[in-house]
Amino acid sequence: MSHRIAVIAGDGIGTEVMPEGLRVVEAAAKRFGIDIAFTTFDFGSCDYYLAHGQMMPDDWFEQLKDFDALFYGAVGWPEKVPDHISLWGSLIQFRRRFDQYVNLRPCKLMPGIKSPLAGREPGDIDFYVVRENTEGEYSSIGGKMFEGTEREVVIQETVMSRTGVDRVLKYAFDLAQTRPRKKLTSATKSNGISITMPYWDERVAEMAKAYPDIEVDKFHIDILTANFVLHPDWFDVVVGSNLFGDILSDLGPACTGTIGIAPSANINPEGNFPSLFEPVHGSAPDIAGKGIANPIGQIWSGAMMLEHLGYKEAGDAIVTAIEAVLSEGDQNVLTRDVGGQGTTESLGKAIAERL
Amino acid sequence: MSHRIAVIAGDGIGTEVMPEGLRVVEAAAKRFGIDIAFTTFDFGSCDYYLAHGQMMPDDWFEQLKDFDALFYGAVGWPEKVPDHISLWGSLIQFRRRFDQYVNLRPCKLMPGIKSPLAGREPGDIDFYVVRENTEGEYSSIGGKMFEGTEREVVIQETVMSRTGVDRVLKYAFDLAQTRPRKKLTSATKSNGISITMPYWDERVAEMAKAYPDIEVDKFHIDILTANFVLHPDWFDVVVGSNLFGDILSDLGPACTGTIGIAPSANINPEGNFPSLFEPVHGSAPDIAGKGIANPIGQIWSGAMMLEHLGYKEAGDAIVTAIEAVLSEGDQNVLTRDVGGQGTTESLGKAIAERL
Ligand SMILES: CC(C)[C@H](C(=O)O)[C@@H](O)C(=O)O
Ligand SMILES: CC(C)[C@H](C(=O)O)[C@@H](O)C(=O)O
Repeated sequence: MSHRIAVIAGDGIGTEVMPEGLRVVEAAAKRFGIDIAFTTFDFGSCDYYLAHGQMMPDDWFEQLKDFDALFYGAVGWPEKVPDHISLWGSLIQFRRRFDQYVNLRPCKLMPGIKSPLAGREPGDIDFYVVRENTEGEYSSIGGKMFEGTEREVVIQETVMSRTGVDRVLKYAFDLAQTRPRKKLTSATKSNGISITMPYWDERVAEMAKAYPDIEVDKFHIDILTANFVLHPDWFDVVVGSNLFGDILSDLGPACTGTIGIAPSANINPEGNFPSLFEPVHGSAPDIAGKGIANPIGQIWSGAMMLEHLGYKEAGDAIVTAIEAVLSEGDQNVLTRDVGGQGTTESLGKAIAERL
Repeated sequence: MSHRIAVIAGDGIGTEVMPEGLRVVEAAAKRFGIDIAFTTFDFGSCDYYLAHGQMMPDDWFEQLKDFDALFYGAVGWPEKVPDHISLWGSLIQFRRRFDQYVNLRPCKLMPGIKSPLAGREPGDIDFYVVRENTEGEYSSIGGKMFEGTEREVVIQETVMSRTGVDRVLKYAFDLAQTRPRKKLTSATKSNGISITMPYWDERVAEMAKAYPDIEVDKFHIDILTANFVLHPDWFDVVVGSNLFGDILSDLGPACTGTIGIAPSANINPEGNFPSLFEPVHGSAPDIAGKGIANPIGQIWSGAMMLEHLGYKEAGDAIVTAIEAVLSEGDQNVLTRDVGGQGTTESLGKAIAERL
């Protein structure tokens, strides 16, 4: 069986880390005898926008919908195109139209990486953030009134549906069941956001009834961010709305010192549409073009992609290779952000060689 | 001139830390010859709700509006009253009806306090979070449809007005001007929250024109929380919407190890209505009734209150007294959360004695 993967490098360092992601996925595919075919697309980038006036061609959905997965670099370059246009014209479209309603992000303190938190060692921090990825605070309903006057007011609606909330909660509870600690933490703000968030809490309580073996707790998002810093060891699976999940899945990797290497999976669990795999770091215009970006986020996302396609062993092998290269700590191999003097390519090659 | 202060201890440890707050404010008032009269109210607590079916009497506004300030403990006890009822029936009413549109929270690494961040020393972290405090994500507009069915959907509207955004930005820019670094950071999420947040950015850019001496930057809230952990030294004055400010003003104190001692001021800058001063920590039902709560949040809030009333010297003297007692590190005085075996009272008394 051959797997067809659509490759979109996007903007900035996306174009630099993608070749290394491909290198390592290909190495793993070879080792484990997996048949993968890559097809590259140039849309979903700000340069495409500058040439065509839109982020993607009109038929992007048709072009992409039958792939087995999308392997994505990073999108956004605010000096070329405002972020809300570039993102809503690409990444957010993929998430919605391909109904990738789970955004899954591991937060794991890796060997060789220094946590900014005092006294934390590999093994101390190891949890997942499960983020709702299609609705909630990222809505397209609302507008502006009394424009240009003193009375100007803007309104944006947060929309949560029972379907939308329940399905991501179910994914999170199911994930918690596969983990030794079987613990789920819900991010809320029902004391302040008084309509949608009490509803979220209600659905968590309802879903919890079907999972008596899972220990469930909840925190308001303000104190939850504090607890990520103070007690990262408390967490196992953390589930949140689109916005809260977004925040926690940057803060979590920051606490593990891996904001530049964290991966993510945008998953359509039913497999009706392709899922999308991308590093968390974004396009980083400030270091783009220098060949110094850390490719591990892209490579680790590739591991999540292989796991999603059914090759858990291959995915695990990539993560093991990443850990090995990080522990080794070779200055000539590692990029600057993790204490070396190497390049995007030297780090990608070293990981590929391990396989 | 005599100052009339309304005192509402509220729930949980609010009732335990308030006496120490009063003790220290009285000591400072005595030393600096300030004439203060306290009037205590029993409403604004969950026990009041259980007795009266509402958090406050109908005429609370009339009863309180002519005070010079409100000194507040903490409110909320979810097992007695759901949070969104207790909070929207008290604290959030004060903020709105008394138009306390600025929520000001210092994040300062104090001597004797260990930061959870590796290698950070007192002096390294010292910034303010300025939070919009009356509108934004904390709205009361929205509702539920198709209740109880599979099609159930809930909607809540975020509302930002030009008046509401501009006035808190102005406060933040003015504050930045009083600081040596003159730097302002805006919290946004205009790449995802595509209507209200680009508007917020627009107003920041507009306001910045009037403050050419202020260095302005902005971060999306996800990476901003990461940067609080990775680079807390970057920040001077951080301004955010109601929700983003809420998150950052718990995360900031967590990074300085002071979540249990951080103060806050809910300010009506024009003085049309009383401002409100309260610790950040909340009612903490889990440790209530044990006499072990740290009273510094309440005491420090008292210092902010004195400064607001025009007695900067008295406020500074309280902060100096807090720093002195913390640096001394007397085990018998300090509460457990800061490494001692003392009580709420022993710590309050020690600080009062310094004055
Ligand atoms: C208790 C809650 C409603 C409140 C808020 O979110 O404003 C609190 O977290 C705060 O920061 O003062
Ligand atoms: C770029 C942005 C729209 C996006 C998001 O907020 O979802 C990013 O922060 C992410 O987490 O994938």
